[in-house]
Amino acid sequence: MAPLAVTLGDPAGVGPELIAAAWAARDAAGLPPFFAVGGAGLLAAAARQRGLAVPVEPIDDPARAPAVFPHALPVLAGPDGAYRPGQPSREGTDLAIASLAQGIGLTRGGHAAALVTAPIAKARLAEAGWPYPGQTECLADACGVMPEHAVMLLAGPSLKVVPLTVHIALAEVPRRLTSALIVRRARIAAQWLARDFGIARPRLAVAALNPHAGEEGRMGDEEGRIIAPAIAALQAEGFAVTGPHPADALFTPRARATFDVALCMYHDQALVPLKALDFDEGVNVTLGLPIIRTSPDHGTAFAIAGSGQADPGAMVAAIRMAGHCAAQRAGA
Amino acid sequence: MAPLAVTLGDPAGVGPELIAAAWAARDAAGLPPFFAVGGAGLLAAAARQRGLAVPVEPIDDPARAPAVFPHALPVLAGPDGAYRPGQPSREGTDLAIASLAQGIGLTRGGHAAALVTAPIAKARLAEAGWPYPGQTECLADACGVMPEHAVMLLAGPSLKVVPLTVHIALAEVPRRLTSALIVRRARIAAQWLARDFGIARPRLAVAALNPHAGEEGRMGDEEGRIIAPAIAALQAEGFAVTGPHPADALFTPRARATFDVALCMYHDQALVPLKALDFDEGVNVTLGLPIIRTSPDHGTAFAIAGSGQADPGAMVAAIRMAGHCAAQRAGA
Repeated sequence: MAPLAVTLGDPAGVGPELIAAAWAARDAAGLPPFFAVGGAGLLAAAARQRGLAVPVEPIDDPARAPAVFPHALPVLAGPDGAYRPGQPSREGTDLAIASLAQGIGLTRGGHAAALVTAPIAKARLAEAGWPYPGQTECLADACGVMPEHAVMLLAGPSLKVVPLTVHIALAEVPRRLTSALIVRRARIAAQWLARDFGIARPRLAVAALNPHAGEEGRMGDEEGRIIAPAIAALQAEGFAVTGPHPADALFTPRARATFDVALCMYHDQALVPLKALDFDEGVNVTLGLPIIRTSPDHGTAFAIAGSGQADPGAMVAAIRMAGHCAAQRAGA
Repeated sequence: MAPLAVTLGDPAGVGPELIAAAWAARDAAGLPPFFAVGGAGLLAAAARQRGLAVPVEPIDDPARAPAVFPHALPVLAGPDGAYRPGQPSREGTDLAIASLAQGIGLTRGGHAAALVTAPIAKARLAEAGWPYPGQTECLADACGVMPEHAVMLLAGPSLKVVPLTVHIALAEVPRRLTSALIVRRARIAAQWLARDFGIARPRLAVAALNPHAGEEGRMGDEEGRIIAPAIAALQAEGFAVTGPHPADALFTPRARATFDVALCMYHDQALVPLKALDFDEGVNVTLGLPIIRTSPDHGTAFAIAGSGQADPGAMVAAIRMAGHCAAQRAGA
């Protein structure tokens, strides 16, 4: 299996130090060989600042990474910059964009088995004229996939969730939901869970939008009008789908044992239970792409970058999950 | 301290068997003396069906309950009925209403230190012409409190939450939220947590409505327009209030340690994390009333009534919490 590619993210955020910390934890955490996409000097400085003994070894070819990985953090020769944690800059933004673009190219070309992306600052990239709302849309575009076919899965040890709508106002959610949207994303979730997670026939639980699933229309009619028809269509296609389930009943320990993934109607319906249960280990996985992509489910955390406080748990989990998915896909 | 009064709820639901089970667990669970409001024959039958050895002893006066409680379940002489679990009937609905009315009267009169209500079936009571949407509204009316001043608190071992809106469609939530509503309910929550829970200066964390708290208006403007002004007003009154917090960040273990109660904008925002973390022990407490009222945070569960499957955890927790609140109020 090819090594994994890990992008730098915004170099003023916690990305570089977490990459170094993940390498330092490689044996205890059972991580597969990975390399960082650029930033050799920056990564060495971030490791030093965190008090980690992390030898950084530039490589010219990703194929060298597995040989280097046991004794040093392999870093693909390429753009680099100064390490100024907590001080985002245009230079850093450009580096984040370059690292992501190169990482996508290497993974698309098969030189990396999967892509792990460190966090970027969306507002910064927008200021720099970057034409995407986030990394996922950039990835979809680079892979020739329609953005609405790139589906966010958030996975922790206790729970996997797919938010069917994401970064929109809560008031927009009922207007945006359609049966077609639910069907499309549920299909992709089921197909990719089978392909990359080895779940032969994933059990999908669809959450309701309204409290108590609307109580037969007394508190909202989206369950009967939009969600139930989508579930019926998916069942007719042979998918193992249940719902709409009242959301508050869906995340109890007993209910969680009955499904592989919960399809949620909005951002917080998915993220609240995930972070309540699995905070420091949440991994964001993009389903629907030809390549495997994971990322830690947190932001750049400029405020604590360089202070040593950032928890590497989610970065470690993102790298480990990317490795598992790559192995699964390779073995299939 | 006077004993606690426990109403029957719908006698075809899980109420009667859970009252019997709570009495059977009184020593292990450290429960204070309580009595059931009516239904002596019915409770004896429910205990038998569950395989519990629960002697039932009718009493004429709540003051007798503490003497009876160690050796038998005290039941106030009054209306009774046949035990037909899973088969709701008009007779059962009338009994539920009578038990609730008598329980409220006894608690208002000081013959009971607190009221614990078993679950009713709202749709059944509505069919019978009962003029309230739920038990809480009935209680508020009986106590002469405006319904919007009766505030639902849901409490488990890990978390206390107040949903600021409750049984309305999600699409209605943004339209219903006002700064005045938030301020009123937050005040009541703070005052009653001090009075009945002994938290001298409760720390209130207010959740945002939109994902990422709206990201400065990019995904909804309710945070700046409605929630932040309410928080500022509450702070000016001297309350310890923070927010608006992105909801997905509010229920992590670390965040939970920083507040006593989370004020949530809608039903599922409050109930999803509570049930994910504290499923079988959730207690519904009505704040803002002159009397103390708790109830287990589950429904009648007609489908499993009489089968022995219903978990008494929430009923036990509701009785225990009512006892703690009564002792707190008595000692204050």
